Amino acid sequence: MTSLTRVRLKPPYLLLIGAETDPTFAKTAQGIVQWCPDKVAGQLRFDGCEVDLGVPDLTLNQAADAGCGSLVLGVAPVGGVVPESWWAVIEQAARAGMDIVSGLHLRLRDRPGLAAAAEAGCARLVDVRVPPANLPVGNGKKRSGRRILTVAADCAIGKKYTALALDQSLRRAGAKSTCRATGQTGIMIAGEGIPIDSVVADFISGAAELLSPANDPDHFDVIEGQGSIFHPGYSGVALGLLHGSQPDGFVVCHDPLRERVSGWPHFTLPPLDEVIETHIRMGRRTSPDIRCIGVSVNTSRLPANERTAYLERLAEGTGLPCVDPLIDGCDALVNYILDVSGTPG
Amino acid sequence: MTSLTRVRLKPPYLLLIGAETDPTFAKTAQGIVQWCPDKVAGQLRFDGCEVDLGVPDLTLNQAADAGCGSLVLGVAPVGGVVPESWWAVIEQAARAGMDIVSGLHLRLRDRPGLAAAAEAGCARLVDVRVPPANLPVGNGKKRSGRRILTVAADCAIGKKYTALALDQSLRRAGAKSTCRATGQTGIMIAGEGIPIDSVVADFISGAAELLSPANDPDHFDVIEGQGSIFHPGYSGVALGLLHGSQPDGFVVCHDPLRERVSGWPHFTLPPLDEVIETHIRMGRRTSPDIRCIGVSVNTSRLPANERTAYLERLAEGTGLPCVDPLIDGCDALVNYILDVSGTPG
Repeated sequence: MTSLTRVRLKPPYLLLIGAETDPTFAKTAQGIVQWCPDKVAGQLRFDGCEVDLGVPDLTLNQAADAGCGSLVLGVAPVGGVVPESWWAVIEQAARAGMDIVSGLHLRLRDRPGLAAAAEAGCARLVDVRVPPANLPVGNGKKRSGRRILTVAADCAIGKKYTALALDQSLRRAGAKSTCRATGQTGIMIAGEGIPIDSVVADFISGAAELLSPANDPDHFDVIEGQGSIFHPGYSGVALGLLHGSQPDGFVVCHDPLRERVSGWPHFTLPPLDEVIETHIRMGRRTSPDIRCIGVSVNTSRLPANERTAYLERLAEGTGLPCVDPLIDGCDALVNYILDVSGTPG
Repeated sequence: MTSLTRVRLKPPYLLLIGAETDPTFAKTAQGIVQWCPDKVAGQLRFDGCEVDLGVPDLTLNQAADAGCGSLVLGVAPVGGVVPESWWAVIEQAARAGMDIVSGLHLRLRDRPGLAAAAEAGCARLVDVRVPPANLPVGNGKKRSGRRILTVAADCAIGKKYTALALDQSLRRAGAKSTCRATGQTGIMIAGEGIPIDSVVADFISGAAELLSPANDPDHFDVIEGQGSIFHPGYSGVALGLLHGSQPDGFVVCHDPLRERVSGWPHFTLPPLDEVIETHIRMGRRTSPDIRCIGVSVNTSRLPANERTAYLERLAEGTGLPCVDPLIDGCDALVNYILDVSGTPG
């Protein structure tokens, strides 16, 4: 793994669901099926499993015959502990040549016998929480290509979803676009990325630069934001990512009813205009013409009959497209982006 | 080391100078002698050494008899490679019960035989570049006590020196003060600290919180800044440190003739008023009343007859005390701090 500059997964995937009974614990697997169904060969379920991703059930042998590249641990086992019965299957998959992909806190190589099994099968053990080694310090030099970063005043407010949805909308609109994932779930969905909050502090912006390298002038990188430059715990990650990404544009992810930082109730959230203004002020250090290109709103807690009016008011106030990506999609953002970014080249 | 929340060195020190011929490579050892002579028992020099720190020459046996707690590698060997002849001495010191303290890139425990020698002597191998394990995420909760952070628009511009000098001046003025070191040299001088740029990104502000814990209401922590929130490579470190430190006041370290980021010549430095204003804007997230309490100027490259006039003009323009700590000391800053901070309690 040390020679890689990013985590990169090998499709197609066999998604290990195990004996999960609660869909909320299978979010990663569901995300993979939702965003990249073409990379999914099937699911592996054990007796008693009540979760169904709607993809073919495959045994390990069937998956191997189907040329599966990776066995993806797509669930968070209760208590974080992988049951012994799973390990036998995981080892068998590695021996059969499938990469083992995990977003769990434990390191796969710490599991006795698994490294040997992987070696025997020429398979890799991929811990998506482990950043690549030999990251550079950020140089801040302007790279060709366009970049859009999703940002927010808080965590867990839609940055990953918005990045995935915007990337998808850009591609559907005929634009060249790549989603650049920075968190474990995003990496498993996008198939590659760098877990930016796990890198050593000195290399945050350097990792962000590697993540979104120079590209065609009309190519978009849609970069999954992490943390927030306003967050008392994670601001360093967010500012390093902002500077390293050197985005031309950013989308603010916003929850109109969230007043305080999730899990940090002693911190109120700054108002939306301050979020926009401060990202411009800080971001222009590496991207002089940085601008906000829209607001991605989680309207799920608004009364249904107030949703549209809220978004319209917000659009009027900010002069920007404001969408709920789950309901409206991201086409309005795409139109605005292609509009303000003009002709490629 | 994993149970410690910070690096903490055991005085008195025997400073290993080896066969150094160039004083510029013995900067760390010189800094230790300059800032904490009472912690230094002596120096260990080999044949051909042309550097003299002005402290007693001691053999290992003499140092052991004198109760030396640590052998400090106070030089950066040419090419970063420790000569074989040194290793024999280092191992002997560990066996004799002295902690081995290193700021080198290599890890001491990777040296074959050294860990065993340390175990035999009940000595520790202390790599000051290695951050403590089990750091928390920053919580941003207000801590008692006063905090001053040294900041700047760039690296290598006086943040460490200013922190050390300001801490010393505060103590001389009768105030309670502790210097909180965040870089390897500062840690070796202060005797403890956390190498903030080496921690995992998610824990930058958490490390800064640990570094300057709750204290007496009239106690000052003077925190050594790292990087810069304007730095294309190191802004994440700097913002996490700013938020975690929650400083009441900050000192801007400034070089009037530096126009570009050192080593990043494609970046100009922001003007001083922007540096002040942006630190206030970002810093007030965790320290609502944050203010700039002075400017620490490196006037060494100004013509001697312009120095005083420059500082006076700057003081007038900013309304703040402006000093060159090497020449003027930090008393003007201390007076201002004690003035604006009023009576303790």
